[in-house]
Amino acid sequence: MVIIPPHIENLAPYKPGKPGANMFEDAKPEREVVLSSNENNFGPSPKAMEALKRSLNNMNLYPDPTASLLKERLSHLLDIPVSHLLMSNGSDAILYTMFRAFLSGDDSMLTSHAAFVSAKVMARMNNIRCVEVAMTGDHEFDLDGIITNIDDTTKLIYLVNPNNPTGQMMTRTAMDSFLSRVPQHILVVVDEAYCEFARALSGEYPDCTRLGYNNVIVLRTFSKAYGLAGLRLGYAIGPEYLIQALTKVKLTFDPNLAAQAAGLAALDDTTFLDKTIENNTTELQKLNQAYDRLGLKVIPSVANFITIKLKNEAEVENYYHQLLSRGVLTRRLASFGLPYCLRISIGKPDENDYMLRMLEEVMDQ
Amino acid sequence: MVIIPPHIENLAPYKPGKPGANMFEDAKPEREVVLSSNENNFGPSPKAMEALKRSLNNMNLYPDPTASLLKERLSHLLDIPVSHLLMSNGSDAILYTMFRAFLSGDDSMLTSHAAFVSAKVMARMNNIRCVEVAMTGDHEFDLDGIITNIDDTTKLIYLVNPNNPTGQMMTRTAMDSFLSRVPQHILVVVDEAYCEFARALSGEYPDCTRLGYNNVIVLRTFSKAYGLAGLRLGYAIGPEYLIQALTKVKLTFDPNLAAQAAGLAALDDTTFLDKTIENNTTELQKLNQAYDRLGLKVIPSVANFITIKLKNEAEVENYYHQLLSRGVLTRRLASFGLPYCLRISIGKPDENDYMLRMLEEVMDQ
Repeated sequence: MVIIPPHIENLAPYKPGKPGANMFEDAKPEREVVLSSNENNFGPSPKAMEALKRSLNNMNLYPDPTASLLKERLSHLLDIPVSHLLMSNGSDAILYTMFRAFLSGDDSMLTSHAAFVSAKVMARMNNIRCVEVAMTGDHEFDLDGIITNIDDTTKLIYLVNPNNPTGQMMTRTAMDSFLSRVPQHILVVVDEAYCEFARALSGEYPDCTRLGYNNVIVLRTFSKAYGLAGLRLGYAIGPEYLIQALTKVKLTFDPNLAAQAAGLAALDDTTFLDKTIENNTTELQKLNQAYDRLGLKVIPSVANFITIKLKNEAEVENYYHQLLSRGVLTRRLASFGLPYCLRISIGKPDENDYMLRMLEEVMDQ
Repeated sequence: MVIIPPHIENLAPYKPGKPGANMFEDAKPEREVVLSSNENNFGPSPKAMEALKRSLNNMNLYPDPTASLLKERLSHLLDIPVSHLLMSNGSDAILYTMFRAFLSGDDSMLTSHAAFVSAKVMARMNNIRCVEVAMTGDHEFDLDGIITNIDDTTKLIYLVNPNNPTGQMMTRTAMDSFLSRVPQHILVVVDEAYCEFARALSGEYPDCTRLGYNNVIVLRTFSKAYGLAGLRLGYAIGPEYLIQALTKVKLTFDPNLAAQAAGLAALDDTTFLDKTIENNTTELQKLNQAYDRLGLKVIPSVANFITIKLKNEAEVENYYHQLLSRGVLTRRLASFGLPYCLRISIGKPDENDYMLRMLEEVMDQ
């Protein structure tokens, strides 16, 4: 038998979610509202889907390995040079590439407890030690604590702003102060998957591509505000020398042609983007008020989801299953390190209203 | 500055191809025939594109991480258990995953000179030593030579059947004899990207999933016969313990939703597949005869391309540019280790005829 290295053998077997028709198991509810994966419940950007339709006849061709049209458009929109951009098969593919490009042997990664799991999973895959610093205040990253935990092995610091699954953000002042204290030889990755929502919700939300650090890579995605999770499209913004290194080790034909065609059109679908963001801003406020009225404690969020703090994991299980049987799919957070929390995505107004009615029903029992 | 490891720093910067409109540079030929990437010039499978169109409204949703529908259909068609299948973002993504799962430190990879470059590039990315054994006969893999070169560091043997860019195949007898001599702790990867064409062209072409070895993984793709190169869809067939290890380290949401929807329908588009394969069988014979008539030497091929052996790299450059200026894009093979060779994909009958006319024109000069 081919020998599998222990760090791979010991990884937990992959536990798939419940896709498509299986999502609600045997519940067969009258209505089905999916609020579990922070997707865009308005669907994909319509302009993106029109563009994808027009590109179907070319699907026999290999994609442009440089995604040049997409990078040029993005470069124009963000006012960032093309050489500072890398497009890939979702931002998790870029994280995967980063581990390959930059980390090995005794290098370690530093992050926060309850930071998004993706980078932690990849650290385990790569046999890289991952140090998690406890959170502070109300589920905030302890940036001072992270600085204190830097040691000679630290090669990468992974932050998420706003974080998933907490929804908390770090302010411009906090980020700037933090980055100024990180030694320049340590790579800082700031995952901004939810930046479009945060920007609309807080004037203090920083654009980490503008803070002037030469050791920072920002990750963005088309999976959330643009509604293209199915196509896998994300990008990195960073200094040229780091982007160049990543470009050398990315998979040649990432991102796929469908993602490139759709992504290009999605960037210009401002109607869809505006609708998505406005809905989120309005509904977040409405949901916060409703949760408050119901006596539920939440973690303050500037993303497209709100995480509710319950008593314990048993209560989370109860809420989760009760909501599921009423056709509302939410996300338990034990695997994210928050077993007493339930995350609920912000959907369309009628979906949120339905979810609230069902939640009230569950609480009244 | 973040320190980039020397094996990454020293990788050659990525040299992109010439996608889309730039393909023919300033040539502006009357006709444009792309015979450079072994794509399916009939386009993508029409049934696959219909299925993709029907799935557009779901592109805001994350793909099924297990690609369960696709695996179940494939399991049925191939009569192979679902647990022996892994779907991913092109077969290069599976190779990428294999390096992560199985190789590290002083492990080495063993392959042939002029074997497909993908695995060699990944070995360099991973700082894994790659041993290339010289070919024998008329550009055939020297299987005995590969056996002789196995040493204590050998962890992976990479074969391609039929090989790209030579088109040569290994017979069932040769493969069986080879595999029986490889120690069971060494992983053998057989890339069968062109198997659909080879199967139709030779009764001696082996199905390496059926030879009964517990250390063999076969790679297949939807990029060639199925015409879905743009969507990135490939799969691995292997023993359960190896597939399980790969599943743990693959990117969660690979393959993308468009690829899953299209791939599922492509499997049942037998009309398109038959047309593709019949065209290839007929046209390969026609092209072999034409090359012979023109006095050109070729490497015997059972794939969807034929590689012409010219005098030297200068002659290849001349043919390449002369054909390019007449609207025919071919592939030079210096980067594949065959600088005296020009690879020409097999297109539709009228494309091949046009290419032959232009080739004759070039030769008559």
